[in-house]
Order: sequence, then C-alpha cells, then structure tokens
Amino acid sequence: MSDTGRLLVSCPDQPGIVAAVTAFLRDRGANLTHSSQYSTDPEGGDFFLRLVFHGADLDELGDVFATEIAAPFGMQFRLSDAGVPKRIAVMVSRYDHALLELLWRWRNGHLPATIELVVSNWPDLQYEVARFGVPYHHIPVTRETKAQAEERQLELLGGGRFDLVVLARYMQVLSEDFLDQVGCPVINIHHSFLPAFAGADPYARARDRGVKLIGATAHYVTEDLDEGPIIEQDVNRVTHAHTVAELTQLGADIERTVLQRAVTWHCEDRVLVNGSGTVVL
Amino acid sequence: MSDTGRLLVSCPDQPGIVAAVTAFLRDRGANLTHSSQYSTDPEGGDFFLRLVFHGADLDELGDVFATEIAAPFGMQFRLSDAGVPKRIAVMVSRYDHALLELLWRWRNGHLPATIELVVSNWPDLQYEVARFGVPYHHIPVTRETKAQAEERQLELLGGGRFDLVVLARYMQVLSEDFLDQVGCPVINIHHSFLPAFAGADPYARARDRGVKLIGATAHYVTEDLDEGPIIEQDVNRVTHAHTVAELTQLGADIERTVLQRAVTWHCEDRVLVNGSGTVVL
Amino acid sequence: MSDTGRLLVSCPDQPGIVAAVTAFLRDRGANLTHSSQYSTDPEGGDFFLRLVFHGADLDELGDVFATEIAAPFGMQFRLSDAGVPKRIAVMVSRYDHALLELLWRWRNGHLPATIELVVSNWPDLQYEVARFGVPYHHIPVTRETKAQAEERQLELLGGGRFDLVVLARYMQVLSEDFLDQVGCPVINIHHSFLPAFAGADPYARARDRGVKLIGATAHYVTEDLDEGPIIEQDVNRVTHAHTVAELTQLGADIERTVLQRAVTWHCEDRVLVNGSGTVVL
Amino acid sequence: MSDTGRLLVSCPDQPGIVAAVTAFLRDRGANLTHSSQYSTDPEGGDFFLRLVFHGADLDELGDVFATEIAAPFGMQFRLSDAGVPKRIAVMVSRYDHALLELLWRWRNGHLPATIELVVSNWPDLQYEVARFGVPYHHIPVTRETKAQAEERQLELLGGGRFDLVVLARYMQVLSEDFLDQVGCPVINIHHSFLPAFAGADPYARARDRGVKLIGATAHYVTEDLDEGPIIEQDVNRVTHAHTVAELTQLGADIERTVLQRAVTWHCEDRVLVNGSGTVVL
Repeated sequence: MSDTGRLLVSCPDQPGIVAAVTAFLRDRGANLTHSSQYSTDPEGGDFFLRLVFHGADLDELGDVFATEIAAPFGMQFRLSDAGVPKRIAVMVSRYDHALLELLWRWRNGHLPATIELVVSNWPDLQYEVARFGVPYHHIPVTRETKAQAEERQLELLGGGRFDLVVLARYMQVLSEDFLDQVGCPVINIHHSFLPAFAGADPYARARDRGVKLIGATAHYVTEDLDEGPIIEQDVNRVTHAHTVAELTQLGADIERTVLQRAVTWHCEDRVLVNGSGTVVL
Repeated sequence: MSDTGRLLVSCPDQPGIVAAVTAFLRDRGANLTHSSQYSTDPEGGDFFLRLVFHGADLDELGDVFATEIAAPFGMQFRLSDAGVPKRIAVMVSRYDHALLELLWRWRNGHLPATIELVVSNWPDLQYEVARFGVPYHHIPVTRETKAQAEERQLELLGGGRFDLVVLARYMQVLSEDFLDQVGCPVINIHHSFLPAFAGADPYARARDRGVKLIGATAHYVTEDLDEGPIIEQDVNRVTHAHTVAELTQLGADIERTVLQRAVTWHCEDRVLVNGSGTVVL
Repeated sequence: MSDTGRLLVSCPDQPGIVAAVTAFLRDRGANLTHSSQYSTDPEGGDFFLRLVFHGADLDELGDVFATEIAAPFGMQFRLSDAGVPKRIAVMVSRYDHALLELLWRWRNGHLPATIELVVSNWPDLQYEVARFGVPYHHIPVTRETKAQAEERQLELLGGGRFDLVVLARYMQVLSEDFLDQVGCPVINIHHSFLPAFAGADPYARARDRGVKLIGATAHYVTEDLDEGPIIEQDVNRVTHAHTVAELTQLGADIERTVLQRAVTWHCEDRVLVNGSGTVVL
Repeated sequence: MSDTGRLLVSCPDQPGIVAAVTAFLRDRGANLTHSSQYSTDPEGGDFFLRLVFHGADLDELGDVFATEIAAPFGMQFRLSDAGVPKRIAVMVSRYDHALLELLWRWRNGHLPATIELVVSNWPDLQYEVARFGVPYHHIPVTRETKAQAEERQLELLGGGRFDLVVLARYMQVLSEDFLDQVGCPVINIHHSFLPAFAGADPYARARDRGVKLIGATAHYVTEDLDEGPIIEQDVNRVTHAHTVAELTQLGADIERTVLQRAVTWHCEDRVLVNGSGTVVL
C-alpha cells in the first residue's frame, strides 16, 4: 500500500460537492496533489471529479466516505491506491504492434499497470510474449467453436481476475454474454477515426474515399460494435500516393500510440463514462 | 502574360512520357522549375504530371503540344499562365469566417487568384464584402424559389465567366442542373472530417458521439452530396468539456484554414481529379 | 456585474487549501463550475488554483476572502467578474495579420475582452482599424525620439487604463521604464519557436539552419528581450522548398493563432506566472 | 538485383537536365515511377533530382550515365538498386527506445535496410539485441581510452563496411578522425528541437525555460556538434505540469519516431545534403 490515493466521483451536480469532499480528505490528513472536475450543467447536470492525494490511510477511507459523503450526495465513486498497478489481460490476433507497444512500456516502467496474461486466437506471438515473462494462451476461434472458445476465455479472464481487458487488434467480435461476464472494462483499438469507416477494412475504404488523414480510435467495448464510448483518437496525414499497405503501416503507428494513451489514462483512473462518451480528467 | 507556365497532364501510364514532355519543353526554350508526378500503377495505371517552367512562349505552346505530345500519348492536359490569376466567385450564407479568410489573403497578395464576385442568399455580409471592393449579389432562396434563384445565380456565375466557384459555407444544396451549367469546378467546405458526420449539424453530432477530434473537409462538389473528391482535410483536438458552441468556433478555424489551402492549391493548378479522389501534386 | 466569478490563487503549498477556499465559496452561495490546480511540489512547493463559480455576490467577496483565507494561507489572489471583459490596447507596426485576427474575433464575440485602442509607429493600418470603431493613434518612433514617443504612449496606455497591452508584431523594443509604468501585463508574439532564433529575422535564420518546423511564441514581456514567461507556442511543418517569403507567410498564420490563444487565456484569467514560466489552468 | 533503380542527382541548374536524364533512361528501357526535383534558383542555383524507375539493367547504367550525362552537366549522382537494402550499424549507450524502434521495424519488413551490427559503450542492451539475431559489441569508452575505443569501433564500422551508421542515443561525441574514417554518413538523433537546447540536458532546460512543445531532431553528424544538416524534426505538446521525467518519456516517443523517419528516408535515397541543410525528395 502506497500513501497516494485517487478518488473518482460522479453524481448529480449540486452546490458544495468539492467543499465537502476536500474537507473530508483534509480532516483525514490527506494533501491534494491533483484535482480536476467537469460538470455537464451546473443546474441539473452531472458532475465528475478526480482527486489525487497523499498522506491519508486508504484502508479506512472508503467505508467512511461511502456513508458520510457519497450517500448524501448520491455519488458513485471509485477509490484506488495509486501504488497498486492495475492488472491487465490482453487479447490479440496476429498483429504485434499494439501488443508490443504495451509490453515495451510496461517493461520500461512507463505503464501504470502489470500485464499478466495474453490470450490469442493465433499461436503466432507466443515466443515474443514469452520473452516478457507473460503467459500466453492460444485459444483458436472458429465460427462453430466461438461459444466454447469464449467459455475458455472467460475461465482465464472472467470474474474480476483483471482490472482491464485490452483488445490490442483482436479481430473477433465479443458476444454480449462475454461482456456481461468478464467483470471489468474492455478497451478496444479500432483502426479508423470513428465514426468514419466503422466495420471492416477501414484503410482500404479510406483510400477509396480519398481521405487526407487516417486515424485510430480507442474505446470501451459495448454490445454495439464500434459504438462504445471513445477514450482517445488521433490521426496522421496521408496523400493520394500512399498504398493500402503504406496506410496500414502508418495506421499501425497511430493505433499503438492511441491505444497506449487510452490504457494509461484508464489505469491512472482518469476516465469516466458519461452516456455514450467519456470524461477524461 | 508572364513567362511562367504550368502544365497539368493525365494519361494512361506508359514508358517515355516524362522524357517526351520535358524534351518538348526544352526544345521550346523552357526551363523546368518544378516537377512532380504520380502513377497509380506503372503497368496499366493512370499517370499524372505537373510541371512548372519558364522561358517559353505560352501562346504558341498549347496547339503544338496537343498535336505532337498529347495526341500520341492519349493525354488530357491543362496549360496555364502562372501570371494570370484564377477568377473566383464565392457563394456564402451568413457565416463570415471562410469568406473573410479568402478575402483577407487575396488582399494581402497571398491568394493566387482574384475574388471578383460574392453571391449570397442573405444580405448580412454585403458591407463587409464592399470594403474589399468586391460586388455582392443578394439572391434570396426559398424552397419555392430555388429554381428561379439558381437561374439568376447562373446568369452571374455561369458559362465560364469564372475559373472557380467556392462555397464558403453556403448552406444550400446545388442542383444537378446548376452544376452542369456553371461551367467551372465548384469547391465546398464541409464542417466535418468526411465521411464522418456527413449531412447536417456535424458539430452537435460530433459532441453526441464523444469524438476527441473535430475536422473540416474541402472537396469538389458533385451531384452526390458530401461525396465529391476530397482536396484537403484537417482536424483539431477537442475534449468532453467543449460545448457545441465552442466546437463550432474551433471548427470555424479549421474550416477557413482547410478551405484556403484547397482554393490555393486549385488555383496553383496542383489538383487533379482521379475517380472519387484527388491527386495533389 | 454578472453572477459568474473567477478566482486565481497562488501560495506556498500546504494541506487544506482547496477545502478552505471551496468551503468559503459554498458558504457564500457559490456553485463551482470549473476547478483546476497545480502544485510544483506538495512538500514545500508552490500551489496554483483557478476556480470559476456562480451564484455569489462578487462585490462583497474580495475583502472577506482577503482576511479570512488569503492572509492565513499567505496567498496572492485575483478575483474577477467573468461578465466584465478585459480592456485591451494593442501596439502594432505595419503587419496586419495578428491585429486583424484579434479584431475579428472580438467583433464576432469570440474574444472575452474589448479592444479599446490601437497604437502604432506607422500610419498604415488606421483605416482598417477605423472600420472596427477602434481609435488608432499613430506615434512615430525613431532612435532619437524613442523616449518622447514612449512618454506619449504611456499617456495613452499607462496607469492602469487597460488590463492588458498586446504587442501584435510591434517591432520596437520597449524600455524598462515603459514596462514599469504601463501598469498592466504586456503580451508579445515572437515569430519563432523560442528559444530558437531569438532576436531579429527568425524566418531567414530558420531557413539557413534548414529546420523542418517553424513556430511562434506568445510570452509576457519582461526587461530581458525574448526571455519572458512563455504562454503558448505552436509550429507548422515546412520543407527545404519554402522560400523566406513563404516561411514568413506560413509563420504569420501560426503567429495569429498563437497570439489569439494566449490573449484569450489571459483574459479568461487562466494564466499565472511561475518564475520564468507560466502555469496555464 | 531487382529491376528497380533509384537515381539521385545534384548539379548546377541549367536548361534540359530532366529531358536529358529521362530520355537516357527511356532509351535504356526504364519506366519512371517517381520523380521529384528541387532548384534553389533556376538562374545560377543548384538543382536536385530523384528518380525511381524500373525495367532497366542497373549494372550497365552507371558507367554510361557518368560519361554521357553526368559529365556534360557537371553532375554528382548516386545510382542504387532499390532491391538491395542499405547495411546499417547502430551505436547506442543505455537507452533502448530509439534502437528498439529500428530493430522492430526492420524485423517487420518496414525498414528498407538491414541492421547488421550494434556497438555500445555499455553492455546493457546485449540480450535485447541478441534476440533479433544482431551481433552486439561492447566497447567501453572513458575519457582516457576514447582514442583506442574509436580505433576498435572503426575496425568494426569503418572503411565502407556499412552504408550508414546510426547514433540511436549514443551519448558520446565522435572525433573528427572517426568521422573522416568511418566511410559512410552518420545520422544522430538529438533530443531537442534544434537549434533550441543544443548540448546536454535539453529536457531539463526546456522545463526551466517553460516551453510548451518539446521536440527531437535527426541530423547528419558533422564536426560541429549539433550543427549538422537536419533531416527531420517533430514536436509534442507539453504543459507546465510535466516533470522532467515525463518530458523525457514523452520525448523518447518523438525521438524514436523522428529517427526512424530520417533513417527510412535516407535508406530510400531521398535525402541530399545542400550546404548546411538537406533536400528531402
């Protein structure tokens, strides 16, 4: 246990929230180091707050906060120990770039998380992953075996074993059942600037359409394919002269950048879902 | 007449094109200052070439080139005098930003064109435009009067009077008839990163969707609304905290930047249409 | 007087600041709409806070805050009415782009300020400025007359008549005396990415050096030329092929963008000086 | 030997260069796929040309070109087989990011080169490099042993064994002697936007100066430290809140991006030195 905590709060906006929360923390010895907030509308809107503090005893904080502050204000909140890295499992197919970027940053100490498991429907990346000392489970998926495959995946990933599942170019659609049972948020990287080119083959379609920028989108996975709340997006400039292969390669660089940003922000407790979008504090 | 010419060529790709064209120009006293080219495929593809040269007599060049070079290679070509600015007419509704950016650059000598006419379905911007010494025609458009309005617009704009018509946030759809008769290319600025948010109210829809970038797209106008060949696009980073009004304002800055780039490139004879896209040389 | 206030605070970091300030505001009926903070070091560092709130009576707030909160915490603070636009004077030479961008945004309601005066050492822009209804004072400056010229400038600009003086490409160095007596912050736009190419002719020197990006820097003016705290910077990509004239024109676009951002942020009370740098909240 | 060749030419500008070169290639069966050129001044300036072509016999081309075309025009030229990847040696200290980016791209087939050797003054990265099947030579360097160390380095790197030496964060200055004898271009990545923050500790100095962007610069190494011709630069936006450690990490991402672009362009024969700058075609 470190002495640095993070508190994420959302509730109906109303006067006095910040004063109440910060007085609560001060009275328990905490010193604020970061604070940011967002209100959709001070009158009748939703309020979001992220605080980072140190000096308080995190063990005792949660229960008291729930009773004294969260209940009267109608808050949802998440209190976490900044010294405890999030546990991540990664699902991947055969492309290595998004996965390797995460493994690399994790090894260099630049990802506030531990990557504990990789699950793939292909065997291709197992030696690469083994080098990082991370277990690699190959679970083949065909149209016929998808239900059983998801069962096996859930045995490995489900029930709160992880804080986050990352789809680092996992080229399979996950069922509603899977999402219900996995027990943690799932982040996907889509290889286009959503909502443009949702669906398959975005780079080929981007080239056909003659766009001058290609992009990537990291979002939480929901039951609606390519419709989940967007966490981060970025683009690269391209020209008429780029082939689909070159767009794919340029796109891979944006994908890994955008995905690692989204995963980092999530693991720093900076992302709150707000309806069909996100608030990144 | 200046002594600087520009030659834009497109034809089926085949060996010897550049050698033939550049020898032709050299033999007529021309010295090349810029050259760029693009081939969709050296075997059976389409070839695009842009040359800038000086020292040749442009008056005599075109006819000879048509016979000696263009015909045998099956070329389409456009030869223009770099010293003769393109004649532009602008159509606009009530937003001033995209129009003013063009007027401003033109007055400062940074637009290789002359803005000779502004046509609007609103009277709002007439005094602003008058200051630049440009005639302003107010032609109201309603659902009922659209056909007559287009007739009056065509009297002003049609039949090759202009080299380019620019829709600088003109919020009306132009009919097929209008496009057939206007007699020059028409460039539009769309206030989104197409194909995302084609159609109306893109900033409000972008906010609803929670995107992290907003953009603008300059494209040639075709009969398919928001589907014409894209000339230029750009984006700006936004967050959950931006209101629709703020997105609209940030977007206006991208719109004027993207539109002036597209208009400048077009007027420098740098843009060729290639199917549903463009080649910018 | 609007009912929206902004509070900017800086003081030595210590526990309980946010709790004390937000409780103070809550007890006077204020509802927070924005809050951001920064600490150079929670132990022994400096703390910076910006709050936006509404619902409190601003008239009465300042004196009580000074006694009850600012004094015990050793705070410097600035309380302002968000409904009262800052009064700006602009100094300019002959380039119009940075000035016009500010005038344009102000007229369209996108600058949280009023531009009340333009002072120039050249007469060139007086008609342009007159169109916006803003007084224009032409005060010629030569090496010999600089002292008298500054005296006349101070009669117009000095002694707290304005909340901000903006140098929108004013090509003269201001004396220490002038800065002492002008009585408000002065923001300058420098046409390079400082500290690269400090001093004269940055675009020509950038071209000689073969850089691939050119930039602009908005900073508070101090006695050390080109060394004041930086508020905002941005860059544009360039190539070997750009002439000095083209770099100057591309640079003008960055200059006006960067300057308007810096001025807007300053007028929204978002910028605090921290030693040789700034904190933008 | 592939059938695709690249020709890089520089000479005094004069009429007829492109016509002569392209006719020469056409007459030997070559079909141009790319062409770009740059002239510092059509009258008395320097001319630079890059052509890519296929279908010609590269073996025989060079000698004839030298006599028939290069000599009369006073050209320097470089003819290379696009199918023969450049041989690269990398020098590195202890930071892995720039080296790994190159190794990774090479393994994935995205670097038009082969990385054949890594030399380091530290042993740290030898296992990482071994995984890619690349020999790793550890040559310690101290102030006293620098001359002998360079001798050993030259035994490995010198005399034209390689087409390019890349300093992927090699934290030692190379002597004039070394540069004279290494027999190929040397590309360095500097961790700042040169000329800002030339020399040591650029991120700490950038933070002290309060800049809002940090950058990286890839340049050819010359005897003047941090003064060689710039090939590529890029920047990332930062704020007052970033610590030196965070700037260093953000900077590492720009460094690896900028270095891989510069190395890729060099290996595609796209970079020509022009005095103190480069022409990237």
